[in-house]
Amino acid sequence: MSGSLVSPATRRRVRDLATPIARGLGRLGLTPNALTVVGFLGTCVAAFAAAGQAWAVAGVLVLAFGIFDLFDGSLARATGRVSRFGAFLDSTLDRAGEAVVYIGIVAGCLAIDHPLGAVSAAAAMASAFMVSYTRAKAESLGFAPAAGMANVGLAPREVRVVIVAIGLLAAAASSLDALAGALILITVLASLTTVQRILHVRAQAKEG
Amino acid sequence: MSGSLVSPATRRRVRDLATPIARGLGRLGLTPNALTVVGFLGTCVAAFAAAGQAWAVAGVLVLAFGIFDLFDGSLARATGRVSRFGAFLDSTLDRAGEAVVYIGIVAGCLAIDHPLGAVSAAAAMASAFMVSYTRAKAESLGFAPAAGMANVGLAPREVRVVIVAIGLLAAAASSLDALAGALILITVLASLTTVQRILHVRAQAKEG
Repeated sequence: MSGSLVSPATRRRVRDLATPIARGLGRLGLTPNALTVVGFLGTCVAAFAAAGQAWAVAGVLVLAFGIFDLFDGSLARATGRVSRFGAFLDSTLDRAGEAVVYIGIVAGCLAIDHPLGAVSAAAAMASAFMVSYTRAKAESLGFAPAAGMANVGLAPREVRVVIVAIGLLAAAASSLDALAGALILITVLASLTTVQRILHVRAQAKEG
Repeated sequence: MSGSLVSPATRRRVRDLATPIARGLGRLGLTPNALTVVGFLGTCVAAFAAAGQAWAVAGVLVLAFGIFDLFDGSLARATGRVSRFGAFLDSTLDRAGEAVVYIGIVAGCLAIDHPLGAVSAAAAMASAFMVSYTRAKAESLGFAPAAGMANVGLAPREVRVVIVAIGLLAAAASSLDALAGALILITVLASLTTVQRILHVRAQAKEG
């Protein structure tokens, strides 16, 4: 099994930090699924900021709603409201949110005539989707439990969120080439992750 | 359960037509998985054609390899070599193939400065991925069998392939606005399909 850039211990520690905040949001009357939808809408605002070339705002919002995304699961676990539909909605809107951010970057790069940025954003979107798709498809066919597959892959969503946020902040601070570089990095890491997952599934198929 | 633009009867009829050709390819020594990989590589050629604004070539290749994609499954069924890994590889490379075509269109539209085409291609890619992702994720969580989910949705892959091919041929014959129109149509149909699937899963979750 291949390594990840985020260790299971780090994952657990971050989750523990999220729980009290998530409980607080729950006391405001928000359900886990409502938090999922709010997080998606916030990410759409980040996408609009990117489309309008407000790169710094987009970067901060991507990071903020990337963290916010921890709360729905934490609240569900803390209040015993974990559901299959909640898991489905969370994963689905995570994908949609990531996609709208990349589409926003495509639009923003086109508006100021930076074709490399636009193509890299499209490539990053495709490769990020492939990472999520291979996991879901493998699981739907009965390969590997969720925990196993999650550990296979250099660039899980958390890592991608941080890289794209840094890229957006770098676009604000210096040039769009830095953003394009971040997007190409995501494309490379995510494509390697997809290949890792395909090989992992093939190995499991041979064992079975 | 909602309707689809492709009836199950049409699907079966097309499959029946594909079987003898698939058997012929099998006699040449090709395995079902080899056909899957060949189909993906062919689609990559279509993507390069689109990136080079050879729209007509891209349209013909997208259609040809869209049809070619029937043969791997037909050969596997006809020769008793259906496997879980084969199903995984087929679905995964179908997604990757669709994505590279859209990335090719983004690049082609950028090269001749047609931002609407580029943004629509990125949006079509995202929405097409959402259709496939929602199905795989729903199934991985134990919702609906494959056959059930496949019937939910206006725009399955076959329909998307035909629309994008027509758009590419229209781009060659008239203007890129026609291609952008086709991509926007895919985005609308695929987004509606995604919403249909989310509602379908929610309904199932409520029953359960």
